[in-house]
Amino acid sequence: MGGFTHIDAEGRPAMVDVGDKPSTRRSATAEACVRFPPEVADELHRSGLRSAKGPVIDTAIIAGTMAVKRTHELIPFCHPLPVERCRITADFIDPTRLLIRCEVAVDHKTGVEMEALTGATVAALTVYDMCKALSHAIVIGEVRLVGKTGGKREVGPGSDTP
Amino acid sequence: MGGFTHIDAEGRPAMVDVGDKPSTRRSATAEACVRFPPEVADELHRSGLRSAKGPVIDTAIIAGTMAVKRTHELIPFCHPLPVERCRITADFIDPTRLLIRCEVAVDHKTGVEMEALTGATVAALTVYDMCKALSHAIVIGEVRLVGKTGGKREVGPGSDTP
Amino acid sequence: MGGFTHIDAEGRPAMVDVGDKPSTRRSATAEACVRFPPEVADELHRSGLRSAKGPVIDTAIIAGTMAVKRTHELIPFCHPLPVERCRITADFIDPTRLLIRCEVAVDHKTGVEMEALTGATVAALTVYDMCKALSHAIVIGEVRLVGKTGGKREVGPGSDTP
Amino acid sequence: MGGFTHIDAEGRPAMVDVGDKPSTRRSATAEACVRFPPEVADELHRSGLRSAKGPVIDTAIIAGTMAVKRTHELIPFCHPLPVERCRITADFIDPTRLLIRCEVAVDHKTGVEMEALTGATVAALTVYDMCKALSHAIVIGEVRLVGKTGGKREVGPGSDTP
Amino acid sequence: MGGFTHIDAEGRPAMVDVGDKPSTRRSATAEACVRFPPEVADELHRSGLRSAKGPVIDTAIIAGTMAVKRTHELIPFCHPLPVERCRITADFIDPTRLLIRCEVAVDHKTGVEMEALTGATVAALTVYDMCKALSHAIVIGEVRLVGKTGGKREVGPGSDTP
Amino acid sequence: MGGFTHIDAEGRPAMVDVGDKPSTRRSATAEACVRFPPEVADELHRSGLRSAKGPVIDTAIIAGTMAVKRTHELIPFCHPLPVERCRITADFIDPTRLLIRCEVAVDHKTGVEMEALTGATVAALTVYDMCKALSHAIVIGEVRLVGKTGGKREVGPGSDTP
Repeated sequence: MGGFTHIDAEGRPAMVDVGDKPSTRRSATAEACVRFPPEVADELHRSGLRSAKGPVIDTAIIAGTMAVKRTHELIPFCHPLPVERCRITADFIDPTRLLIRCEVAVDHKTGVEMEALTGATVAALTVYDMCKALSHAIVIGEVRLVGKTGGKREVGPGSDTP
Repeated sequence: MGGFTHIDAEGRPAMVDVGDKPSTRRSATAEACVRFPPEVADELHRSGLRSAKGPVIDTAIIAGTMAVKRTHELIPFCHPLPVERCRITADFIDPTRLLIRCEVAVDHKTGVEMEALTGATVAALTVYDMCKALSHAIVIGEVRLVGKTGGKREVGPGSDTP
Repeated sequence: MGGFTHIDAEGRPAMVDVGDKPSTRRSATAEACVRFPPEVADELHRSGLRSAKGPVIDTAIIAGTMAVKRTHELIPFCHPLPVERCRITADFIDPTRLLIRCEVAVDHKTGVEMEALTGATVAALTVYDMCKALSHAIVIGEVRLVGKTGGKREVGPGSDTP
Repeated sequence: MGGFTHIDAEGRPAMVDVGDKPSTRRSATAEACVRFPPEVADELHRSGLRSAKGPVIDTAIIAGTMAVKRTHELIPFCHPLPVERCRITADFIDPTRLLIRCEVAVDHKTGVEMEALTGATVAALTVYDMCKALSHAIVIGEVRLVGKTGGKREVGPGSDTP
Repeated sequence: MGGFTHIDAEGRPAMVDVGDKPSTRRSATAEACVRFPPEVADELHRSGLRSAKGPVIDTAIIAGTMAVKRTHELIPFCHPLPVERCRITADFIDPTRLLIRCEVAVDHKTGVEMEALTGATVAALTVYDMCKALSHAIVIGEVRLVGKTGGKREVGPGSDTP
Repeated sequence: MGGFTHIDAEGRPAMVDVGDKPSTRRSATAEACVRFPPEVADELHRSGLRSAKGPVIDTAIIAGTMAVKRTHELIPFCHPLPVERCRITADFIDPTRLLIRCEVAVDHKTGVEMEALTGATVAALTVYDMCKALSHAIVIGEVRLVGKTGGKREVGPGSDTP
């Protein structure tokens, strides 16, 4: 039997150490867009946004909020956080596109971008689930961070990076 | 294809924002009562409160304590909290009624009522599970908050609201 | 240093072995009742059953359904189950009492009583959480199993045990 | 104090009952696309797809696979399922776009579309998290179902619906 | 901007596909050994195996059983399973060594080795936690699989591999 | 029907109350050792530490890190904690023994020994799972705490207790 393997600690997966960062008020806002085929959108509007499984928007908001709180269980190197605020809204920006917006805030040593993105995404997935009996051609498109405050880098209108 | 739906943000499900609240020492105590049919209670006392599945009270206390820590996963708009204290007791207040009491405390921006209620309730459900081979006529009755300190409103003996 | 402790396996906590049971269609129905102080009930009815945190009944049904699926994580000796059906309803049986009913079904080797009881209970706790800004004197009372089919013992109208 | 509210069971949130469906081999494939700003993509390729937090693709695949197994905890009306197969791949389809593909299969009474979509999405969110120190302008776009077999409706090349 | 990275699917992390395996009765047994410093063992025996945090053995058995059910959440490529049997025992094999044994069984397409190992290990960690106020020199040693039936390869007395 | 049982609160399972402890920077380091049969070790080294299920070390580190964050869900009386740092390394100390080291830090009222031990252990279990197609004779041995700072008692080189 031969030699053995030196494992280089460089490049190994690892959580960032936030121990020395100051605790500050941090917020982040993310968006996810759900696009419906026109006939599915029509049917959905006619039904008052209720599918056979119940109220589409309220169910999505509840699922998204619950997912925000579990972000660190889903994303391997996210820190667990005592989330203090989570607000999810959903609006049709045209007849076939529903824009979900998730805003999260906390007073902590690290930002909440992943929480906001996860909340918006799980809300969008829930919309899909509530409506998939109508069509599987629904698409979740354009999940993005639209704002971020309280850390080293700000994101959003008025900040340097888009 | 027609118009689209305006979604009023009013009345949508949402977590309360506790970001601006001060962090204070908060505690809450809840009770749940488990009522046994007399012959089941008799058998349970004769067995030293051990069912075929093991020690009824200890198992219930452990399950209740673990549930306290996961309250925010169960109740959609509860905030995740670094629970600092959880004490669950269980006492027969008469031969057929077991009173479970769960006290929770934390130093945080929001109260722990739901944690105390969830702990008492899951402990009671566990008692049911440990004893259901004897009878399905066991009833969990009267789950209530009996005390609460540290927030805007106090609850309990000596406070304004019952 | 002296002798050591013999640990008797008798009476130790343990999951029931269901390996030799046949897989059959099983269902269970549980109820939980939420009692509101009259003035709270009045305000709730006037608001169309929406609190500041959103729609009370829909949120409770969603939370209860999600809890049904996680019963085995909460109750130490419950078996994990591929739940096939879960229906939760909530009705005011008089102006101050909301009756929550949770029916669960599965094709499996063990019953779903605990799932039904957990679903009804977590739905009731969620009602409490949605309304607690109005009052902490809300009481969850009388959580009970009202029906059970498919196992060795049936429970409910027309069966031997209540 | 006045009357009380009749709650119509119609339209309430509810899980679909799959109890009477046959257990068949079902599979679903979903895709999510992650788009990087060109300079971020460049840096990522130069680094061999390793960020400061470790290997981007492997971490994303692991997180996505774990999320597939927890889909029913995230999406309120998804059924818990004994997932038998989950394969996630990730490929750059051009220098700035990473296509994640998640295929899930099970022998069960209900389909696994939501599992495939959740796996692809959480893998994409993990890519975002692994790379966000480089830029917050990464976008997750076009999450869609691309195939589905074994249920009433098939999806994909050769089937009726796209 | 240059070329892009070809990602070889070979060697990527992946769950084994068990879809084509037959469902058979499978069991596995694992052991974990907890070693106490002699004076800690002495104190523990004198106390009747109760620490300041409660009954050591019962708490460990409950925690181990609950962990068995969540193995697939902890180990990335374990399949979720409807565990049918879990029995954990704990015995002092000499005054300072506690042997924990965890047996798991299921009727399914894949084995339960990881479930048995996880149950034994979490029970051992819980023993550590219950006793760590006495000493941090407690060691968990020798976690191993001691038996396995029902799959392609058998493990244990009378089988080919140890 | 006779009398009833007095339940002594003494000795009941209970979480330690950490409410009055000061919040300080705390860290803990634990080790777990995985021992491979020589021929398995040989094969593993030849493969570059990749099994059929993917990269052994990276997968183990990710699983261990995720388990650290969920320690309080596994160990009944562990407090939930906002983990700030988690670093897991793995090195072959000789051709057949892989030493996993998990270091955890937090600014909180209680220590993180159990988090470090849980992370090391779940990483070791994941190594087992990744390699068990080669052999079931792999053994996890010697899980121990090797350092601890920030609480009443220090552990490690230079401290009083080993």
